[in-house]
Amino acid sequence: EIVAAIEGILGGWAGPLAGRHVLVTSGPTHEPIDPVRYIANRSSGAQGTALAAALRDLGAKVTFVTGPATVPPPQGVTVVKVETAQQMLAAVEAALPAEAAVFAAAVADWRVANAADRKMKKDGSGTPPALSFAENPDILATISQLAKGRPRLVVGFAAETDDVIAHATAKRARKGCDWIVANDVSPATGIMGGSENAVTVLTAEAAETWPRMAKDAVARKLAARIAEALA
Amino acid sequence: EIVAAIEGILGGWAGPLAGRHVLVTSGPTHEPIDPVRYIANRSSGAQGTALAAALRDLGAKVTFVTGPATVPPPQGVTVVKVETAQQMLAAVEAALPAEAAVFAAAVADWRVANAADRKMKKDGSGTPPALSFAENPDILATISQLAKGRPRLVVGFAAETDDVIAHATAKRARKGCDWIVANDVSPATGIMGGSENAVTVLTAEAAETWPRMAKDAVARKLAARIAEALA
Repeated sequence: EIVAAIEGILGGWAGPLAGRHVLVTSGPTHEPIDPVRYIANRSSGAQGTALAAALRDLGAKVTFVTGPATVPPPQGVTVVKVETAQQMLAAVEAALPAEAAVFAAAVADWRVANAADRKMKKDGSGTPPALSFAENPDILATISQLAKGRPRLVVGFAAETDDVIAHATAKRARKGCDWIVANDVSPATGIMGGSENAVTVLTAEAAETWPRMAKDAVARKLAARIAEALA
Repeated sequence: EIVAAIEGILGGWAGPLAGRHVLVTSGPTHEPIDPVRYIANRSSGAQGTALAAALRDLGAKVTFVTGPATVPPPQGVTVVKVETAQQMLAAVEAALPAEAAVFAAAVADWRVANAADRKMKKDGSGTPPALSFAENPDILATISQLAKGRPRLVVGFAAETDDVIAHATAKRARKGCDWIVANDVSPATGIMGGSENAVTVLTAEAAETWPRMAKDAVARKLAARIAEALA
């Protein structure tokens, strides 16, 4: 990383993605219920962070839009910190144009429509305050289906707990993205929040299952594929 | 801390709480929605952790029941890690008897009654899956109102965002605890997740407001009061 940073500063590095702008989203989103409570998910941001670092190492100019992850963001990339799905979409749109966009964040499908600006209280009735939900913007579908300024390569992630390939294949078609990186985040796998990943990369042509390996290794392999696709 | 640990090992330390068993809860709870999503709150566990360390430094045998905090638990205490409010109550009950119990955790008032064992999916209707909520056990009230085996001193925390003293006074009466440590966790204060705290300690006799100070300092002052009360 230090060597990469020095090479970057000296301008001596011309990797296969040199000068290309690539967008990566990462981490969970937090959706507020009231000033102290929120809805979260178990994403640590590890896979998105490793991917941003791997793309940077191939010479890309990386914009890294991250929710409140537990893993620190990589050095040498432009970091944009957000909390909610709505903020993440706005940050992604502001970061375009990009030649490739990789949506590794675990974005909440729903937000609380009636989030309170004071802490909600038990009223003694035993009945919780009613929460109503609103569907969040679909960042992957929105960018995949842009009429103007769509990145040449749009990659989505699918975190599934069952029927992984079938769900991911349907997701690729529905969203309109180019590739889906599908992984099984069943608690038994230890993948969500862990250091390893086992993924299947789905393209228009093929479904390629990679052996379980470190998230850093998945990131390097995927970054190399992205470089090939943009070459 | 090292000195305290060595003194503990050598048995040479006889602080005012020597040999007394004190229970401290700390951190947020996480209430699952499905295998990857959960409801959380912004507690870092910093105040509860500092308090457990301060009680240990006065010689107490501390059982530290903690939710998924961002701050690591203190050395030299018995750590019991839990995730949900129901697990926290069970751990507290299992840790009794204790001479004092301090409930610093930010426990979720409600859990999702219909948590799913598979990841919930958008079904394309735009309507989120219905979540129904159930009220969590009230750990502070349960222990405060124990007919047998109630700790001599039960201390609750009140995290409020408005009308702090009024809410905390009502809470003390309603729960049946001895003291309430009330603090204002409005986002503007930076207290929840921050390193300082500004508290009011409510007892049957008085409401005493302490100046804003480091959470470690609040912990030492409160631990000293607890030692006085048990003397």
